Amino acid sequence: MKLDVRVYHIETGKPVVVLNDEDAKDLGVYVTGRVRISHEGKSITTIADTTSTFVKEGEIAIFGGVRRLLNICDKCIVEVSETSKPQSVEFIKKKIDGYTLNEEEIRAIIQDVVDNNLSNIELTAFVTGGYVKGYIMDEIVAMTKAIVDTGQSIDFGDDIMDKHCIGGVAGNRTTMLIVPIIAAAGFIIPKTSSRAITSSAGTADTMEVLAPVDFGVDKLKGIVNKTNGCIAWGGSVNLAPADDRIIRVEYPLSIDTEGHMLASVMAKKRSVGSDYIIIDIPVGRGAKVISEEKAKDLAHKFIELGKRLGVAVECLITDGRAPIGKGIGPALEARDVLYALDNKGPADLIEKSLDLAGAMLELSGKCIQGKGRNIAEEILKSGKAKEKMKQIIEAQGGDPDIKPEDIEIAKNEMTIISEHRGRVKYIENKIISTIARAAGAPRIKSAGLYLHVKVGDEIDVGDPLFTIYSTSKNRLKEANNLAYKLYPIKVGGIISDIIR
Amino acid sequence: MKLDVRVYHIETGKPVVVLNDEDAKDLGVYVTGRVRISHEGKSITTIADTTSTFVKEGEIAIFGGVRRLLNICDKCIVEVSETSKPQSVEFIKKKIDGYTLNEEEIRAIIQDVVDNNLSNIELTAFVTGGYVKGYIMDEIVAMTKAIVDTGQSIDFGDDIMDKHCIGGVAGNRTTMLIVPIIAAAGFIIPKTSSRAITSSAGTADTMEVLAPVDFGVDKLKGIVNKTNGCIAWGGSVNLAPADDRIIRVEYPLSIDTEGHMLASVMAKKRSVGSDYIIIDIPVGRGAKVISEEKAKDLAHKFIELGKRLGVAVECLITDGRAPIGKGIGPALEARDVLYALDNKGPADLIEKSLDLAGAMLELSGKCIQGKGRNIAEEILKSGKAKEKMKQIIEAQGGDPDIKPEDIEIAKNEMTIISEHRGRVKYIENKIISTIARAAGAPRIKSAGLYLHVKVGDEIDVGDPLFTIYSTSKNRLKEANNLAYKLYPIKVGGIISDIIR
Repeated sequence: MKLDVRVYHIETGKPVVVLNDEDAKDLGVYVTGRVRISHEGKSITTIADTTSTFVKEGEIAIFGGVRRLLNICDKCIVEVSETSKPQSVEFIKKKIDGYTLNEEEIRAIIQDVVDNNLSNIELTAFVTGGYVKGYIMDEIVAMTKAIVDTGQSIDFGDDIMDKHCIGGVAGNRTTMLIVPIIAAAGFIIPKTSSRAITSSAGTADTMEVLAPVDFGVDKLKGIVNKTNGCIAWGGSVNLAPADDRIIRVEYPLSIDTEGHMLASVMAKKRSVGSDYIIIDIPVGRGAKVISEEKAKDLAHKFIELGKRLGVAVECLITDGRAPIGKGIGPALEARDVLYALDNKGPADLIEKSLDLAGAMLELSGKCIQGKGRNIAEEILKSGKAKEKMKQIIEAQGGDPDIKPEDIEIAKNEMTIISEHRGRVKYIENKIISTIARAAGAPRIKSAGLYLHVKVGDEIDVGDPLFTIYSTSKNRLKEANNLAYKLYPIKVGGIISDIIR
Repeated sequence: MKLDVRVYHIETGKPVVVLNDEDAKDLGVYVTGRVRISHEGKSITTIADTTSTFVKEGEIAIFGGVRRLLNICDKCIVEVSETSKPQSVEFIKKKIDGYTLNEEEIRAIIQDVVDNNLSNIELTAFVTGGYVKGYIMDEIVAMTKAIVDTGQSIDFGDDIMDKHCIGGVAGNRTTMLIVPIIAAAGFIIPKTSSRAITSSAGTADTMEVLAPVDFGVDKLKGIVNKTNGCIAWGGSVNLAPADDRIIRVEYPLSIDTEGHMLASVMAKKRSVGSDYIIIDIPVGRGAKVISEEKAKDLAHKFIELGKRLGVAVECLITDGRAPIGKGIGPALEARDVLYALDNKGPADLIEKSLDLAGAMLELSGKCIQGKGRNIAEEILKSGKAKEKMKQIIEAQGGDPDIKPEDIEIAKNEMTIISEHRGRVKYIENKIISTIARAAGAPRIKSAGLYLHVKVGDEIDVGDPLFTIYSTSKNRLKEANNLAYKLYPIKVGGIISDIIR
């Protein structure tokens, strides 16, 4: 079918054209959702959307990428024919229908996700189908390998250490203590971290208060060669491009497919060649994993997946019922980290980091079992970890001499006080994050909140619970309103919930 | 957040804006996918897409509908805030998680589908979730009612007759004989039919060869008041707008959710107030329903759904292993119908139509059980059905005196001959449709094919199997190639399949 081109100078994420409904029906495009467009000897296959209004019969709307690839101008005539769907769409259908996918089938899907060959409908069907039907370990192994193979890999050498936290705990910046401890102990730990999507800070956001985190592969290798470690933003090195696209569909549906999460975490670790991996699984009300059983099941799956991939994995189930550290938001968390490196930091942040670093040292087999924690503690106490962190900050392009007091915290503040007397029962991570986000974190680094109490503290009416910091008075007010409405800190009482 | 507007003069199907990824993260839009945009005292809520390229940080891309609603110009500044998802997204999540939805929840989803309040991701999750988890009868009843209530309803009076065919059988134009028979018998049968999406002709496409089929509600009521019947295109009266949107997602995934299909069929019948409904369920290789068991199960569900809605439903399980009639494609099928009204038409088309019309007469309780078929036959044989069809054609604006020979058939033709000797074993519907589509049907009314043989016929090598008609020599050649490649008619042999 010959169609008349209407060019729109808009960049779309994937090659896409829009046809009139009637032409689409005639071409049979309703079924395949794909067309082949030919113009002056060049041809490409694109996803075809349809409309009854925006494009007239006999016309085709063409956008940035497709226009350039075919060198098309407005009012050109192009030849359009229906073309078949990629085979991966059949495999997606197979998954929805409850069949197990084999390695080739999973690889085909992941490759098409990365190559942007799937329409939103097809990608969503894949994500929803995987969530509903679940994945068996064979599929998860295949998905991990496919994600690794379709992304960037970086060779940092042998005996690479790594860690991951399942997340959901506000302020949990153990990575920024573990990396300098492990690197100071003489091991290589090229840590890539994420930025916050729904939380008030990711490790990459917090590290960015101290130094840049956005590097290409060569620069990253240089940093690690020099210091044994780094704390970089994973997104900058494109380790798992399939992952980001899948997450974009999971978020609006609030779904988190276990099989995909396992594959995603392990793929990012394998892409940097990690051999010894510690996984932190926080458990409890307000964390991502609610029950102990679920945490144990997840741990066994991580370990099994590690075995199948030939890497050593150990999972630590940790208390996730409250934030770790006192600061929430990039700057306030970075300040906690610097205090901790001076051995003055929040006790819970230091204790958890030492436990994890100790476990990592033991997992590597390079220290006597039961002695890892002591070695880690010695490295922190002696100032060797601080010294290593200064080297890493400098290698990443930050100021190595930065002091906790130098970190700028937003000027407008408001303190929430307790209306009750008793012990602090819990501090709900999600709500704490929501309030810190309302104050401006993570985008505004200096915004967030500071916790004056910990779970178990005995407090009185009028005692300060937390202080909110914001650069904007409006945002401060909004965050304050949320704090009173959502009630993140529960004091006293034995009733955990009232069902009416 | 204040954002700088970039207006694009493009009409999008639903209100949508595009934000930069970073702004979207800051606003928290990744989770809800929605923003509220305010400009000079007016506000609207829209679906927000995100991009890292096409829209810069600090900007927002705004399209046709949203621009007009807010009266925005290029480079205006608008206030944008994240806004919550509609509650229906929670219910979609509930369905995916395996819970049964109640009436209010289903109503909320269908209303948001019709109001275009769901993103493609959310709508696809709904469709995929429903397909994977299935629907119980309570949900199907609720969905039917919701589809009726969110669409147009037309009151044609009491004792309304109707029929539906599950589809999948090429050439199956019984509606065009049943409507005049039932109307001539004195009953009201306001039949709305569909156009082909993947087949070579829908009843609306075929009727359109004889008369217009695209009417508003008032015109349609006028036609039915005058003649007792009509054969109109359902799409023109917007009976079930939710349905079309759901089907748009089902097609590219090749999924057909039974619960949704049941609701969709019955909603369209209830929207025109049908009281007596005959459902034709063709069964067999190449039809939509493959097995007898499946057909019976579906029949029981239709009957149960009818009871719950207060209408009488009867299902006829029919032989769907081969096309009905000889012509395939709008003009060739319309010609068959006119011949049949003259009692000269294909025997199978006449027999099946009389069976269905007879069952319909008996279901209404207005004729003695066992006599329906005879009454229908008498009406056809006597020429009363032909007379009624002329009235309907005239009322719909066509030429009542049209003769079978007047119908234009495409000039280029090619006949496929048998390479084998034996009995015709089957004629595969899907392949026959594919060949007729390749020849140009349904868009080109005069294109299609004509079957020279029926299942059971004894034929010899060289006997003609079917003739393809096309207005284009290229299309004719393409259809011919497909015919030799796909082999729609199987002659002789007892082996039904070879598994290697």
